[in-house]
Amino acid sequence: MMQLKVIGVGAGDPDHVTMQAVKALTAVDVFFVLDKGEVKQELVDLREEILRRHAGDREYRVVFGRDPERDRGSDAYVESVDDWRRRRADVCADLIAKELEDGQTGAFLVWGDPSLYDSTLAILDDILARGELTFEIEVIPGISSVSALAARHRVGLNQVGKPIEITTGRRLAKSWPDDVADVVVMLDAQTAFSRHTDQDADIYWGAYLGTPDEILIAGPLSEVSEQIVEARAEARRRKGWIMDTYLLRRRSK
Amino acid sequence: MMQLKVIGVGAGDPDHVTMQAVKALTAVDVFFVLDKGEVKQELVDLREEILRRHAGDREYRVVFGRDPERDRGSDAYVESVDDWRRRRADVCADLIAKELEDGQTGAFLVWGDPSLYDSTLAILDDILARGELTFEIEVIPGISSVSALAARHRVGLNQVGKPIEITTGRRLAKSWPDDVADVVVMLDAQTAFSRHTDQDADIYWGAYLGTPDEILIAGPLSEVSEQIVEARAEARRRKGWIMDTYLLRRRSK
Repeated sequence: MMQLKVIGVGAGDPDHVTMQAVKALTAVDVFFVLDKGEVKQELVDLREEILRRHAGDREYRVVFGRDPERDRGSDAYVESVDDWRRRRADVCADLIAKELEDGQTGAFLVWGDPSLYDSTLAILDDILARGELTFEIEVIPGISSVSALAARHRVGLNQVGKPIEITTGRRLAKSWPDDVADVVVMLDAQTAFSRHTDQDADIYWGAYLGTPDEILIAGPLSEVSEQIVEARAEARRRKGWIMDTYLLRRRSK
Repeated sequence: MMQLKVIGVGAGDPDHVTMQAVKALTAVDVFFVLDKGEVKQELVDLREEILRRHAGDREYRVVFGRDPERDRGSDAYVESVDDWRRRRADVCADLIAKELEDGQTGAFLVWGDPSLYDSTLAILDDILARGELTFEIEVIPGISSVSALAARHRVGLNQVGKPIEITTGRRLAKSWPDDVADVVVMLDAQTAFSRHTDQDADIYWGAYLGTPDEILIAGPLSEVSEQIVEARAEARRRKGWIMDTYLLRRRSK
């Protein structure tokens, strides 16, 4: 039987790695990496640093697959993601079949936590459902960018007894969710918060969390919205990529 | 200046502790513990094991304060929690003033992640707002029970491009949140999921996550609801306490 570990390695700080993840990393024969063919050299370096620090002084292999392009122009968001996922599953199934032997352990490293807006688990389920490969899956939870954001701003995500919604920029752009004062937004390429400056709300925003380039901005949404839009655009230009997330907190009346 | 660290130590598995938390633990002079005067000896043992393993072979102090009782009978949930929080802040302010010297570092250990349904940060903010003590706060994120739950069930929390609501048993007992297929429930002493067996939904439930007593049950809500209610009651009777959480996932039509 093959073993596949899906290991959450935290939001960007190599010290986010848990003892459980360290133990898992040292038991891996083959690390699978989907290469975006993009310029995010810092993420590549960071992943290598995590392996260098924590995967143990021993032989292991790192094998690369080419991450298929996603059709980002498509209006049919879910369908385009589903299609992308299927093509990623093709690539991963191929890698696993070629590179992993019976009795060996392979691993996928996931930024943040594998349970939040990450497709690795769905891809592996998809591969299993095809019936051509069998393997066991173990998941190692990680520090999500959401936890990292809250920690750096020293705030809780919820108010007493109140709910939190975690959602996407795409959805927030349409409307503020019903009946929820606290909204955490991930995957927002469109600075959707800037459409809600009429709300009596605070924003806690963070980019490149846990890395030396971390940027934190917090304050009344109507006052700091523009500052965030500018800081985000500038950082994205300078580094060529950005990963950011934020909490919107509507004030109690 | 005094330093206070709020350290997330994970959901119950000592290996959930991050490298960042280990570094923080070894820099602490005084650990503050609010003692519930309850029977949760396993949690006391677990906390001690975390310190023994990770706080370093050196001198540090652990000081205990008596956690005030909460008025659980009250209908005014938020007010009773606010009042409880104020009384906890009294106890904590007293401990800090008496036990921590200028230039020293104190710490509160938090189960799970300090940003999710934990009052430590609000208590420290409350103490600072009183103006009698000044200190710097650093927050170390931890593996939340929510991440641990998803990892153990090997599921994602969200569906593609869809939101997640994290809420309380008290709120779920009233109604399933609007416009959300995936709901994570914490602090549910009333098995509120059992009121929603008419939904076409799956449940992923876990108790004592990450500990040797971990219980996991998953399946169609209508089929496993009763089994969870019984397993929960039996475990609670046997151990005298329970900590559990779950994900409800409404099926797409």
